[in-house]
Amino acid sequence: MSAPPPRVEPGRVARVREALATVLAPEQLRVDDAALAAYARDESDSGVHAPDLVVFPADTRQVSQVFKACAVHGVPFTPCGARSGKSGGSLPLHGGVAVSLERMNRILSISPEDLTAVVQPGVITGDLMKAVEAVGLFYPPDPNSWEVCTLGGNVAENAGGPRALKYGVTRDYVIGLEWVLPDGEVVRVGRRTIKGVAGYDLVGLFVGSEGTLGVATEITVQLIPLPREVLTALVVFPSVLHAARAVSAVLAAGILPRCLELIDDVALRAVNGRGFQFPPGAGSAVIVEVDGNGREGLLAELSQLGDICTSQGATETLVAQDASQREKLWAARRVISPALRALKPHKISEDIVVPRSKIPEVIERLKAMGAELGLTVATYGHAGDGNLHANILYEGAHQRPLVDEALRRMLVMTVELGGTITGEHGVGHAKREYLSLEQSPALIDLQRRLKAFFDPSGLLNPSKIFPALMRS
Amino acid sequence: MSAPPPRVEPGRVARVREALATVLAPEQLRVDDAALAAYARDESDSGVHAPDLVVFPADTRQVSQVFKACAVHGVPFTPCGARSGKSGGSLPLHGGVAVSLERMNRILSISPEDLTAVVQPGVITGDLMKAVEAVGLFYPPDPNSWEVCTLGGNVAENAGGPRALKYGVTRDYVIGLEWVLPDGEVVRVGRRTIKGVAGYDLVGLFVGSEGTLGVATEITVQLIPLPREVLTALVVFPSVLHAARAVSAVLAAGILPRCLELIDDVALRAVNGRGFQFPPGAGSAVIVEVDGNGREGLLAELSQLGDICTSQGATETLVAQDASQREKLWAARRVISPALRALKPHKISEDIVVPRSKIPEVIERLKAMGAELGLTVATYGHAGDGNLHANILYEGAHQRPLVDEALRRMLVMTVELGGTITGEHGVGHAKREYLSLEQSPALIDLQRRLKAFFDPSGLLNPSKIFPALMRS
Repeated sequence: MSAPPPRVEPGRVARVREALATVLAPEQLRVDDAALAAYARDESDSGVHAPDLVVFPADTRQVSQVFKACAVHGVPFTPCGARSGKSGGSLPLHGGVAVSLERMNRILSISPEDLTAVVQPGVITGDLMKAVEAVGLFYPPDPNSWEVCTLGGNVAENAGGPRALKYGVTRDYVIGLEWVLPDGEVVRVGRRTIKGVAGYDLVGLFVGSEGTLGVATEITVQLIPLPREVLTALVVFPSVLHAARAVSAVLAAGILPRCLELIDDVALRAVNGRGFQFPPGAGSAVIVEVDGNGREGLLAELSQLGDICTSQGATETLVAQDASQREKLWAARRVISPALRALKPHKISEDIVVPRSKIPEVIERLKAMGAELGLTVATYGHAGDGNLHANILYEGAHQRPLVDEALRRMLVMTVELGGTITGEHGVGHAKREYLSLEQSPALIDLQRRLKAFFDPSGLLNPSKIFPALMRS
Repeated sequence: MSAPPPRVEPGRVARVREALATVLAPEQLRVDDAALAAYARDESDSGVHAPDLVVFPADTRQVSQVFKACAVHGVPFTPCGARSGKSGGSLPLHGGVAVSLERMNRILSISPEDLTAVVQPGVITGDLMKAVEAVGLFYPPDPNSWEVCTLGGNVAENAGGPRALKYGVTRDYVIGLEWVLPDGEVVRVGRRTIKGVAGYDLVGLFVGSEGTLGVATEITVQLIPLPREVLTALVVFPSVLHAARAVSAVLAAGILPRCLELIDDVALRAVNGRGFQFPPGAGSAVIVEVDGNGREGLLAELSQLGDICTSQGATETLVAQDASQREKLWAARRVISPALRALKPHKISEDIVVPRSKIPEVIERLKAMGAELGLTVATYGHAGDGNLHANILYEGAHQRPLVDEALRRMLVMTVELGGTITGEHGVGHAKREYLSLEQSPALIDLQRRLKAFFDPSGLLNPSKIFPALMRS
């Protein structure tokens, strides 16, 4: 890309460090190389951008103090969670202070009576899932990284996951937030009840704001009863187009599984034999999961779904007979990303969404584009809601211009089909220059001004989401 | 209350009328007494506030032109739909222009493949429900006024309804908006896909903004497959406390019906015999509705639910055997409001929400408060999500101070219990002076500034949501 973003002036860094040392314990402020290197990257392909210091506030007051100190000294500051994001949202592009919320990692309460939980932002998503399931409750959002990612990060990015098809995404579960604004002011927004419409929906605005409007220091989520039965199946198809058409047909027939995960031919070959053996002749597959409280109803639903898939060319439907078979199917799904990474030295993972009726078309066009440009394109993901993780595999830096061209074409095509450039990963740094493919200049300008309304100094997580302004 | 809000200066009205006459056809601009009277009220108890003129734009461009003309001439303007709101949100408090969206009433598309629909704001909610159900799809939000209210109004108020318990509210279904900002600028926000996180969630911010941040001129909603089976039952209890405890117990047992509607003793007596006869000795009742695709699973769920209710003291569970019995139950629910109105000359309907575990406590305290003040309090509504419509019945204006005191106590109590002052009706004009019971001065100030960000002139729907500022 272009020149690296300008870094904050060292004198300012020295002064903010001095100020922060008066409010944080020594172990809460790190400047060692290991820390700076660790907080310089995430799971995106957005490069390495080290902060000048990393701080670990332990409570809301300290978060507020850190924000205020950065404002006073004019130092950019960037919040982060587990750094498992895929759009560079937590990268401190201009240096300055990385504000890690990972010490604020307590589940504060779980209420089976109210069907709510209150957590700190550093709680790992999987830990919350397990804790609520232990009392018969369910927190549905399941980003693929749920074993490591944090709820604060999920809130910042409005994280999705396979179960979003039936259950929605993070913003559908967050009902209240304690929120530190860019100037360090602390507000409580939202509520503790399931419903409520008092005032503007700032929870809705803050969830998915990618760490640019402030940071959550306490998160109240609603829960639902844990479905008593879950059935998982693998449906095998001769080709990805057969699979894509079957996904559309299943949804059109009024069946809403909790997951419909597509695996294309490239992804299937990459994972085949890695703990899971696909039947011979398999060219593509779909993992289906249905849930509910009545086993018979679910079996009937799965059987109807199998019939529809068969009529669309499916060659086999394998129903997991127990928890271990089920886990094997999901392990195959989870291994796709690393398995693809092993195929070629480099991989860019995209996160497009098209209207569901366009799934077969977009897959076909992506394959054709890959063939034309001589790049390997693998497509998998949450096909049920049109959210596809289209991956471009490539050999090295010499192919990067070609990859950038492929990326641009992919996003243009997505928008042409009525889609969006990001379904759950966020715009962050990785896609800011593509936002204008999807959004009008007036809308981008409105959002820029909204960012300035909340953060007039522009010091919170700068150079994210919106395209760089041309210098005149 | 206090003095009526000051009205806009007549010279300005004359000038805006002249300007609007150049962009609207004669029948789109009304100043006759009948029109002014009809647009002076809604379904709240917020009085009569006539506009100076009523306009009926036919498309987005005209809405934009109306907004711009009002800005140029400094005339307040207030959008409205079916005027079925319960918080005075569409009342033109200072006169000026009432902007009715009722002519923009076309369903633009329904896509069974994408599971989406696109509508204009004047479409009646019930018309959309029926149109999508005809093709096997489901639009769940069901405000009680669905036969007359419009989707534009639902978007403005973030309308709920009985099915919100399982399916959520309007904002859970709106994915994209064409939106006219207060200065007349038109933006498209959101998307046409089910998932998407590009940029700030302005859809989330605009839905529920009560006509103070702009108006929707096109609404894209997501749909879900229509559940194939619905079972409805009436569970009868000796007292409202028994019923409230049963509601809590059902949810705690992991059952999530689509509706759990409570009818207390006062409401039950009011509707008894009006097309529906409750069993002798009934002191309270709950209407239960479960839905899904498998009849057997639903019957099992209803049976388990019945057992839980019995263990909480229920004396009878009557399952509707056909559509006509089912409709009778819902007709009894819908007649509660008019039946209560018939008991006493005046009625104030509240819309509180408490955490679900507090439902029995809030009902008990409301009854005690009514007894103490000598007022009749009827409580019914969406008990499953803690959203209760608590009604105060009274004789006339002489009791109004007492009613205001009861109202204040009710809202204080609700907030004390962790609840919110409005679950689905909005703050509007009716509850603006109570917002500070629930929200901090800092949060209210932030929202006031956000309103000023979008509407610096303050001409769009003035004096709503936020408390009147004290003059210094």
